[in-house]
Amino acid sequence: MSAPDKTKDMLGRQRLTPVHEALSLLTGNLQNIQRPSERIFLDEALDRITAKDIFSPEDLPAHARSTMDGFAVKAADTFGASQSMPCYLQLSGEVFMGENPLGKVEQGHCFRISTGGLLPVGSDAVVMLEHTIPVDDKMIELVKSVGAGTNLIDKGEDISKGSVALAAGHRIRPQDLGLLAGLGIGEIEVYRQVKVGILSTGDEIVHWSENPPAGKIRDINNITLTGLARRAGAKVIDYGIVSDREEDFFPTMLKAIKNNDIVLFSGGSSVGMRDLGEKIIERLGNPGILVHGVTLKPGKPIIIGLHNDTPLFGLPGHPVSAMVCFELFVEPAIDLLSGHKKDKKLPQPTIKAVLERNINSAAGRLDLVRVRLHEENGVLMAQPVLGKSGSISTLSRAHGYFFIDESSQGLEKNSEVRVHLLQ
Amino acid sequence: MSAPDKTKDMLGRQRLTPVHEALSLLTGNLQNIQRPSERIFLDEALDRITAKDIFSPEDLPAHARSTMDGFAVKAADTFGASQSMPCYLQLSGEVFMGENPLGKVEQGHCFRISTGGLLPVGSDAVVMLEHTIPVDDKMIELVKSVGAGTNLIDKGEDISKGSVALAAGHRIRPQDLGLLAGLGIGEIEVYRQVKVGILSTGDEIVHWSENPPAGKIRDINNITLTGLARRAGAKVIDYGIVSDREEDFFPTMLKAIKNNDIVLFSGGSSVGMRDLGEKIIERLGNPGILVHGVTLKPGKPIIIGLHNDTPLFGLPGHPVSAMVCFELFVEPAIDLLSGHKKDKKLPQPTIKAVLERNINSAAGRLDLVRVRLHEENGVLMAQPVLGKSGSISTLSRAHGYFFIDESSQGLEKNSEVRVHLLQ
Repeated sequence: MSAPDKTKDMLGRQRLTPVHEALSLLTGNLQNIQRPSERIFLDEALDRITAKDIFSPEDLPAHARSTMDGFAVKAADTFGASQSMPCYLQLSGEVFMGENPLGKVEQGHCFRISTGGLLPVGSDAVVMLEHTIPVDDKMIELVKSVGAGTNLIDKGEDISKGSVALAAGHRIRPQDLGLLAGLGIGEIEVYRQVKVGILSTGDEIVHWSENPPAGKIRDINNITLTGLARRAGAKVIDYGIVSDREEDFFPTMLKAIKNNDIVLFSGGSSVGMRDLGEKIIERLGNPGILVHGVTLKPGKPIIIGLHNDTPLFGLPGHPVSAMVCFELFVEPAIDLLSGHKKDKKLPQPTIKAVLERNINSAAGRLDLVRVRLHEENGVLMAQPVLGKSGSISTLSRAHGYFFIDESSQGLEKNSEVRVHLLQ
Repeated sequence: MSAPDKTKDMLGRQRLTPVHEALSLLTGNLQNIQRPSERIFLDEALDRITAKDIFSPEDLPAHARSTMDGFAVKAADTFGASQSMPCYLQLSGEVFMGENPLGKVEQGHCFRISTGGLLPVGSDAVVMLEHTIPVDDKMIELVKSVGAGTNLIDKGEDISKGSVALAAGHRIRPQDLGLLAGLGIGEIEVYRQVKVGILSTGDEIVHWSENPPAGKIRDINNITLTGLARRAGAKVIDYGIVSDREEDFFPTMLKAIKNNDIVLFSGGSSVGMRDLGEKIIERLGNPGILVHGVTLKPGKPIIIGLHNDTPLFGLPGHPVSAMVCFELFVEPAIDLLSGHKKDKKLPQPTIKAVLERNINSAAGRLDLVRVRLHEENGVLMAQPVLGKSGSISTLSRAHGYFFIDESSQGLEKNSEVRVHLLQ
């Protein structure tokens, strides 16, 4: 008797891999891939990933500025001032917006200042207009004391020269553009966008713009996967539809691998097509297939492979399964290869809802349940969208989905579920 | 004594409007604005908003198809079949992928079929391969009965001819592209993208690519607001920086209003600049100013106005305040004008975290607290990012934010908070 093959069950079928195991197998293989970077202008940088730590070249703000309309003072001069015992200061200057203040605030004096105005030499705090009463053109009455540093933003308080403004691996958001603009950083080094090659396979598939004869169907997966990959920050190269013949499929895969960081093919939920997909990944080799099928519904028949540094995904032909596999496996691969250093501990934002009916699940399998959401007596209810994994309209009707994990055999009506929105 | 002005307090200052009241005043004025639409190709339609209901021109699938590898049968022939009492069927044909099946399934017969194969005439169910045992080339043994309709997707089951595929006002997601592709819909009618004109104001502001002399600062808001508006699905026209003089500011506003659906100006947190912003909106008139300041921190000094159908936003100069006001007021305005019919009842997805320290708030004011998130003993902790509203780095450091509502005077350490991620 030969040693048992751990990847096969007693009937010689491929063992299904648990989802979390498949994911760590995949991501484990993608950890140390070096990504090329490029220099781009700041106004093209939204959603790109920083390739290096970006250090602040200067203090922001460069000089202390007032954060209120009022009077620049020496804080010590205001000591003890109150409604019942005001103090009096000589008004001996004014700070004009956009200009360097002229002169110096001497003891017992103050300068008029607006929000954003540069703090004049000699002053260390700002008294709010509301806490003063004008006596005449040359004098104000103060009814509140202030400590040094009050109502101003200090030199370098926002960010100091030499400190890290953005760390490497950070996805640039609008506010990050603002920070870099504030520092005058006009060009930055970012990772190149991940390129994803997409093929559809199967003799029964025609391009969606064609009128399919009986027996054939329009390609749904290509445009859906393209949209998902673009939203994940990738560029997409479309390799169209290839036939079920190895002599067409294999060279197209080779070409796609050469020009992309990730290659997806979809179609072929039949055993024959699945076998062909596996055969081609095996033939590409090095290391070849990582995962044959996962304990997931929908999405079980996914094949995950690797050719050198290029992850290869054989996604199920059913559009719902293909999309679910994209979200669970392809999106994390794009994110990893993009150079994005995610805070691993941050969960996905979800919304809480109440399940409207009982849902069964098989133990040992992760189920993804599509739902529509609606409010009933002030409670958000999740209504499962039932339908086959070949039915794209079920995904279009769904507001989101929740998971039933491997340890559960289902959820009862009125259970609380955490819904991931499909936005 | 004259009648009290409801928009002013006892000291003659403008009364602040509660945030929800300001928002309904704004959105109430934008309800019935007709948006122009345009026809575009499907592959450009991601994230656009449908302008009309889209009806399915055909049944999807056009013919019943198998969802499993196995045998197409008459369900009635399998009645009573089980492991202990199998039934036998003659194998008299095969369905080839992408082809119309030849012949008809007669009583007591079956055809071999793959997943996706067209159901042959005479059959009404599919038996899974796993529930059969081949007897010889011409006969199979069946160990399980199936009901009519089992393991197939019926004609029109995904979506039926004439039904609504996507309703008007729907934002097109990847799966919606897939649905339309499956129906062969190659062009659709969508609303034109909302155009947002952005100005920065203030004599102390220089473009971020310039080296500011003392007293001046680089423009942070323009690039931040541009990024936010683009993410909200809008096109942005940049009107650069205008001075504090009405004779510059007013004509630029007129030009921006003419070419855009929404106009934002930012800058001027000083009383003088704020007065000028108000003066210009009043001068534009019809109806002019809707809101002078809101009970919000940060973001109090926002001015909201309307010139005919064009909402005008005077955003605070402080970058954090400007961004908060964008999220709370400008984004909903863009969304409304985009024609997007949001499911109003769906809350924003959030993540649950535990507040790391006490936070004070003033009753009657909505506070937005920026936080960093980190895990501690398996619990997600929210650490408030303290810093002034002029400090853009506090937003760049923050993972997200939570609200403390008007009725609260603060939250205690270890309170549960719902964090909106800044992604």
